[in-house]
Amino acid sequence: MTSGTNKLRVAILGASGYTGAELVRLLAHHEHVELTLLTADRHAGKQLGDVFPHLGGLGLPDFLHIDEVEWAGIDIDLVFCALPHGTTQEVIAGLLHATGHDIVDELVAERREDVIAGLSKDVKVIDLSADFRLSDFETYAEWYGHEHLAPVLQPEAVYGLTEFARPALGETRLIACPGCYPTSSLLPLLPLIDAKAIESDGIIIDAKSGVSGAGRSLKEATLFSEVAEGVHPYGIGNHRHAPEIEQEVSRAAGTAVTLNFTPHLVPMNRGILATIYVQLSGSSSADDLREVLKKRYDNEPFVRVVEQGAVPATRHVRGSNHCLIGVFPDRVPGRAILISAIDNLVKGGSGQAVQNMNVAYGFEETAGLAQEPMFP
Amino acid sequence: MTSGTNKLRVAILGASGYTGAELVRLLAHHEHVELTLLTADRHAGKQLGDVFPHLGGLGLPDFLHIDEVEWAGIDIDLVFCALPHGTTQEVIAGLLHATGHDIVDELVAERREDVIAGLSKDVKVIDLSADFRLSDFETYAEWYGHEHLAPVLQPEAVYGLTEFARPALGETRLIACPGCYPTSSLLPLLPLIDAKAIESDGIIIDAKSGVSGAGRSLKEATLFSEVAEGVHPYGIGNHRHAPEIEQEVSRAAGTAVTLNFTPHLVPMNRGILATIYVQLSGSSSADDLREVLKKRYDNEPFVRVVEQGAVPATRHVRGSNHCLIGVFPDRVPGRAILISAIDNLVKGGSGQAVQNMNVAYGFEETAGLAQEPMFP
Amino acid sequence: MTSGTNKLRVAILGASGYTGAELVRLLAHHEHVELTLLTADRHAGKQLGDVFPHLGGLGLPDFLHIDEVEWAGIDIDLVFCALPHGTTQEVIAGLLHATGHDIVDELVAERREDVIAGLSKDVKVIDLSADFRLSDFETYAEWYGHEHLAPVLQPEAVYGLTEFARPALGETRLIACPGCYPTSSLLPLLPLIDAKAIESDGIIIDAKSGVSGAGRSLKEATLFSEVAEGVHPYGIGNHRHAPEIEQEVSRAAGTAVTLNFTPHLVPMNRGILATIYVQLSGSSSADDLREVLKKRYDNEPFVRVVEQGAVPATRHVRGSNHCLIGVFPDRVPGRAILISAIDNLVKGGSGQAVQNMNVAYGFEETAGLAQEPMFP
Amino acid sequence: MTSGTNKLRVAILGASGYTGAELVRLLAHHEHVELTLLTADRHAGKQLGDVFPHLGGLGLPDFLHIDEVEWAGIDIDLVFCALPHGTTQEVIAGLLHATGHDIVDELVAERREDVIAGLSKDVKVIDLSADFRLSDFETYAEWYGHEHLAPVLQPEAVYGLTEFARPALGETRLIACPGCYPTSSLLPLLPLIDAKAIESDGIIIDAKSGVSGAGRSLKEATLFSEVAEGVHPYGIGNHRHAPEIEQEVSRAAGTAVTLNFTPHLVPMNRGILATIYVQLSGSSSADDLREVLKKRYDNEPFVRVVEQGAVPATRHVRGSNHCLIGVFPDRVPGRAILISAIDNLVKGGSGQAVQNMNVAYGFEETAGLAQEPMFP
Repeated sequence: MTSGTNKLRVAILGASGYTGAELVRLLAHHEHVELTLLTADRHAGKQLGDVFPHLGGLGLPDFLHIDEVEWAGIDIDLVFCALPHGTTQEVIAGLLHATGHDIVDELVAERREDVIAGLSKDVKVIDLSADFRLSDFETYAEWYGHEHLAPVLQPEAVYGLTEFARPALGETRLIACPGCYPTSSLLPLLPLIDAKAIESDGIIIDAKSGVSGAGRSLKEATLFSEVAEGVHPYGIGNHRHAPEIEQEVSRAAGTAVTLNFTPHLVPMNRGILATIYVQLSGSSSADDLREVLKKRYDNEPFVRVVEQGAVPATRHVRGSNHCLIGVFPDRVPGRAILISAIDNLVKGGSGQAVQNMNVAYGFEETAGLAQEPMFP
Repeated sequence: MTSGTNKLRVAILGASGYTGAELVRLLAHHEHVELTLLTADRHAGKQLGDVFPHLGGLGLPDFLHIDEVEWAGIDIDLVFCALPHGTTQEVIAGLLHATGHDIVDELVAERREDVIAGLSKDVKVIDLSADFRLSDFETYAEWYGHEHLAPVLQPEAVYGLTEFARPALGETRLIACPGCYPTSSLLPLLPLIDAKAIESDGIIIDAKSGVSGAGRSLKEATLFSEVAEGVHPYGIGNHRHAPEIEQEVSRAAGTAVTLNFTPHLVPMNRGILATIYVQLSGSSSADDLREVLKKRYDNEPFVRVVEQGAVPATRHVRGSNHCLIGVFPDRVPGRAILISAIDNLVKGGSGQAVQNMNVAYGFEETAGLAQEPMFP
Repeated sequence: MTSGTNKLRVAILGASGYTGAELVRLLAHHEHVELTLLTADRHAGKQLGDVFPHLGGLGLPDFLHIDEVEWAGIDIDLVFCALPHGTTQEVIAGLLHATGHDIVDELVAERREDVIAGLSKDVKVIDLSADFRLSDFETYAEWYGHEHLAPVLQPEAVYGLTEFARPALGETRLIACPGCYPTSSLLPLLPLIDAKAIESDGIIIDAKSGVSGAGRSLKEATLFSEVAEGVHPYGIGNHRHAPEIEQEVSRAAGTAVTLNFTPHLVPMNRGILATIYVQLSGSSSADDLREVLKKRYDNEPFVRVVEQGAVPATRHVRGSNHCLIGVFPDRVPGRAILISAIDNLVKGGSGQAVQNMNVAYGFEETAGLAQEPMFP
Repeated sequence: MTSGTNKLRVAILGASGYTGAELVRLLAHHEHVELTLLTADRHAGKQLGDVFPHLGGLGLPDFLHIDEVEWAGIDIDLVFCALPHGTTQEVIAGLLHATGHDIVDELVAERREDVIAGLSKDVKVIDLSADFRLSDFETYAEWYGHEHLAPVLQPEAVYGLTEFARPALGETRLIACPGCYPTSSLLPLLPLIDAKAIESDGIIIDAKSGVSGAGRSLKEATLFSEVAEGVHPYGIGNHRHAPEIEQEVSRAAGTAVTLNFTPHLVPMNRGILATIYVQLSGSSSADDLREVLKKRYDNEPFVRVVEQGAVPATRHVRGSNHCLIGVFPDRVPGRAILISAIDNLVKGGSGQAVQNMNVAYGFEETAGLAQEPMFP
C-alpha cells in the first residue's frame, strides 16, 4: 500500500468480462481498495463506461491492453486475474517471478522481464480462472487439454474456498478461487464428509446455473433465443468442474472419490442451485446433517443453513455473497437431499475473490460484500 | 357421432385453465372433432376470446357453468375433463352412471339424475386430472388427502401413457391421462426396466418444469416476480407425482419400487426436463440402454431417441407432442444418465389426451398433433 | 433519535410488499438508521425471513399487524408508509395528529387515540403510495374513485422528486414520493420545460415497465405465464400516473398541460424505460436539449445524462438509485426523443424515499444508496 | 410442379437462420409443398437436425453450400431466400436470369452460368431479406450502404404485404416480403391513411420486438445476459425500417411522408408490438378508426381488429400468422393510439412469405398457416 492513500492498490486483468465487471461493482466502494489498473485486450483504449454503461460514473482508469502495461513503473499490491482459462498461468508466472521454471525463464528471456523486474515481492494474485485450481498435473492436462504452464507455482496456490482456507490465505502469494459449481457443491458437502455423516460414494450433484456463468464471449449457445424459454443439461459426464469437486471431496474424505456432476443451463442471468443426492452414513438422519451444517456455519457471515421446511432458491441470494443450504429427507430410506443456492458471479466468483482478499489482508471479512440480496 | 357432421361431438370441462386452452388449440382444427360444449365455472357466460384472446377468432360456444349444462338434451360423444384435482371423481361418476356406488347414488338422488339420464352409454371420458391415476385407494387417500370418491369406477380407468396403453384405450370408458412429470419420467424408464437393463432400486429423478404446470389459479408462488430470474426445488421428498411414477415403475418391475423424485421450477412457460440417474444392470452400458430405447420407440410418431452426443432440451419440443430421450454414460462406473424433454402442456397434458382420443377412436394417431416444435 | 444509538428510529408500515422489502434492503446497513418496527397485516406474527427469505439473516423485528402497534410506547422518528393506495390517508392522518379534520377526529374518537398520543411531534412520514401526490382534490377523486380522506394534511405534503424538492424536504412532516412512471418521465422533462427548450404541448410518453411495479398482490395478470414471452400496453389513455405527470409538468410550464402517457408491461422484474417524444421550441436542437440536461444534472449524484450516441437501458440502472437520460434527434424535423431509465423499485420507489430521508435529515444524500447497478 | 408428386418443389436458401427454420416449420406439412433443397453455407454438409434439433425428425435433405447446388440438374418451382441483407440481390439476379444487367452478366460469365441455364423460366422467388423492398435506388444506397446490385430486377419486385398485394402476387417472379416492423406498422396505418381518417403527418411508431428479430448470428448485443431482465431502444432515428414504412405510407397518402419509428428490444423470443400515435383527421374519432379497420379486415383470415377495450398483446399471436389491432382514444384531444401485435417470425417473416406463396399459386390462403397461437 502506498502511504499516500493508505489503500490497497489493485489491478484487475480481464476487466471487460462479467466477472471483471462484478469485481469492479464490489470493489468500487471498498474502503481499503483503490482500483488503479484495468486491462481488457479486445476493448483496450476504451473507457469502462463504454463497455459497461452501468459502471460509467465511477471515474476509473481506461482499459489497457495487457501488453501495454508498464509493470516496471506501476505500484500495485494486488492483482485480480479474471482472464480466460488457460491464459493465466503464463501471466501469473511472470507476475510472480517464478524463477527456476523453464517456461518463466523463457518468458523472462522473451518478453516479461520488465514485468518481473517491476513487481514488488509482496504482490499477491487472486486468480478467478481454473488455471491453478487442480493440484494434480495429470488431471489438469487431461481436463484442460494442455500441460500446466506454471508447474513450479502450482504448489504455492491455495484453493480459495474461503470458509475452508482462512489460515492459508494470508500466507500465500497465489489464491486460486474455486469455480462457481464447486463452490455451491463443496459448501454443503465438505462438513458432512468431514463429520462422516454421509458416504463419500454415490454422490450425485444435479446443478442448475444462470447464463452469465458462460461468460461474455460470443457463442451461439448463449444467444438469448437459444436459451430463453428452455432448460437443458450440458457437459454430461465430462464437465471440468467434476474433477475440481472430486479433488476437494477426496481431500476431505481421505480417499479418492468419484462422483456424478451434471450441470444444466437455466434461462436466468445469475444463480446456481445445486441439488445433491447423498447416502447417509450409519444411522444418521437428515436432521443430523442439518445440525452438522448449522454447527459448522453458525458463525459464518455468508453461509446460512435454512430451517427445516425452508427451501433455498437462487433469487434469495441474487447479487449477494450468500450461500443458502437446506437439508431434506429423501423418501428412499437411508438417503438425503442437500440444496444449496449461490449467485455464481458473487460467492461463485468475484464476491468470493473479494472475501479472500479481505481475509488475506486482515480486513473485515464482509467489507465490500455487505449488500443484501436483491429480490425481486 | 351425429350423422350430420360425421364428427365426434366433444365437450371440455374446465376450459379456462391452461390445459383447457391447450385442448382447444389442438382440437380446433382436428378433422374428426367438433367442439360443442365448454365449461368454466369462474368465467361462465363469457366468450372464449374474453378469457383467452389468442383463441378469440374460432367461433366456439361460450363458457357455461358446469351446473348449467343440460346434459339431458345434449348429444356428446366424448368429454375431456380438465378440472382441478379432487373435483373430477364426482363429476365423472355422474357422467358415467356408475350405479351401485353410494356416492353416485347420492349424486343421482340429489342433483345429477339428469346428467345420468341424458348421457349415451357410449360416452367416453378422458380425464387430465390426477383423480383416476392411482389404482390403490390407500395411496390415493394418503397423497390427495381424502377418500376416493368414485371407487367403483377406478378399476375401469386406463392409465393413458399412450405408448404403453394402446390396446386398452379403445375398450375403456375412462382414460386417466398421466401427469406431466410421470410422462417425462416413464417414457425413458419403462422400456429399460422392462428389459432389465437398469436396476429398479436407487432411481433418482431430478425434474425441471416450466411454470404453466402450476396452472392458472392465483398463487403468490407463481407471480412473475417470484419466479423470474431464479430456480428452486419444491415438494422435495413429497410431491404427488412420486407415487404415480412408482406405481408404473413397480408394475413394470414386478416389485414395489421406491424412488427419488425432486421437481424444480424454472423461469419458462413450458417444458419439462427430467434428468434421471440410474444403476446399470449386470454388464449393460449406456450404449445398450440407448439401443433398447431406440428399438422400443423406433416406430413411435412422438418419441425420439437422440443420437449419441445430442442433448435433449425443452425448447426442442416446445408446442409439440414430442418426447426426446438421450442416454449418457455417468463417470461413476456402472451408472448412466437418462435425459428426457417434453412440453408439459402437450405430451405432458393436452396433447397426450388428444393422442389417447385418436387411438381410442381409431383416428390417425397424429391427427391434430402434427405441428412441429416452435423454436425459438 | 434516541441518544443511546444516535440513530434514526424508523418504522416501515406495509413491509411485506416489494416496496417494503426494498426499503429494508436499502436501510438494513444505513449508518444513521435503526429499523425498529415493521408492519404487515396479512403476515402479522411472521418473521421477515419467512416472507422474504433473502432478508432472513438481518435480525430485524417480527411483523406486527398495524392495529397491534402500541404507538404510545414506541419511540419512532420516521415512518415509511408502503401501504396500498387509498389506505394511507387515514393512517397518516392519525399518525400526524391532524386535529381539526373530521375524519381524524373520528379516528381519534374511535381507535387511534393512542397513536396520536404516543407520537412525538417531530415524527416525519415518507409515503410511497399515491395518497398525497395529487394536490387537487377533484383530480384525486376522479382518478382514485373516492374523496380525499385527509384533506387538511394534503397542503403539507411535499412532492418528493428529490432533485426538485430539496429545500422543502427538511421543512415538512409529510413527503409524498412520486410514482415510478412519473419519476422516469419528469426527470428528463422538467428541466427542458423549465428552460422552454421544448413545447409543453404534444408530449408523448411511451413507457415500459417491469412486473414488480404491479406489486405482490395476487392478480391473474401478473402470473408468470401471463407475462413471460410477451409485451402489452395497459391503462391506455387512462392510467393514474398521467394526471400526476401532468400536475408537475403543468407546474413547470406555468400552464395546464395535457399529455399522452401509455405504459407497457415487459417481462422483467425491474426497470422502467420512458421513451418521450417532444416538439422542440424555436430553433433548439437535440444537442441543445442534452446541454440543458447536462448542466442541470451535472452535480447530481444519481442522475446522469449519457453522451451522444450512448443509449440508456434499464439493465444499466438495475438495483441502483440511478437515472440515465439520453437525447436523440428525431428524423422528423423539429422533434426530439428523450430516453430515461430507472429501477422502478429504487429511484422509482424505495430508493428515492431513502434519498428524501437523507436530504430531510441532512445525511449524506447517497447514504444507503451507494450500490452500483447490478449487471447482468 | 412435377407431375409425379403434384407438389410445388421448393428450395430454401439460408435455411439455418431463425427465419429459415420457421419456413421449414410451416412448410413441412404444407399439402402443396415438397421441400427439395436447403442451403446453409456455414453448416453445409450437416443435417437439419444437427442445426435445429427440433426439426430433426422430418427426413428433409441435408444442407448444401449455395455454391454446391447443381442448379442445372434440379427441378425447382419456387425459391425462398432467407439470406442476409445485401447478399440476395446477386443470388436472385442469377436465379432469375436478368440478362442485360452488368452484374448478372458478370455472374453469368464467372460462375452462375449453370444456375441460369438450369432454371425454369417459371421459377418464382420469395425474398425475405430487405434487398428488394425499397424501390428507390438512392434510398436503398443511403440506408444499406451500397449501390443496388440488381437494379433491372427491382421494378419487377412486388412488395409483399399480402393484404395489399394480392393481385400482383400471382403475376410477378419476385416477391419482396416486408420487414417485421413494417408489417406491424402498415397493417393498422394503411387503411386509415387510405380513408383519410388520420393525418399522414406526425405519425409516431414506438415498436417493441423480441430478440429473434436480430437473427442467429453472433453479436454481443443479443447474448442472453445482455438482453434478459431489461429493455432498451436502438436505432433511434435511424433504423432501416423507417424508410420502408415511409415508402408505403407515402404511397397510400399520395405524398412524401416522414415519420418517427423507434424500435425497442424486449426480453422475449418472439413478437412485435407497435404502439402508434396518430393525429385524427377532421372530426374523426377513435371509434371511427376502429370501424374503418374492421370494415377493411372483416374478411381477412389473419388480421383481426379487437373489440373496444380489448388490448392486443404479442402473446396472443405467438407462433401464428395473426395480426391483432386495437384502437384507443388518446386523452389528448384529436389524437388516437393504434396498437398492433404480430409474431415477427410468422406474419412478420416466414408466415407472410408462405401466405404470399399461397396467394401467388392459388392455394388456400391459410394452407400451412392454420395453427392457432400458442399461449402460454
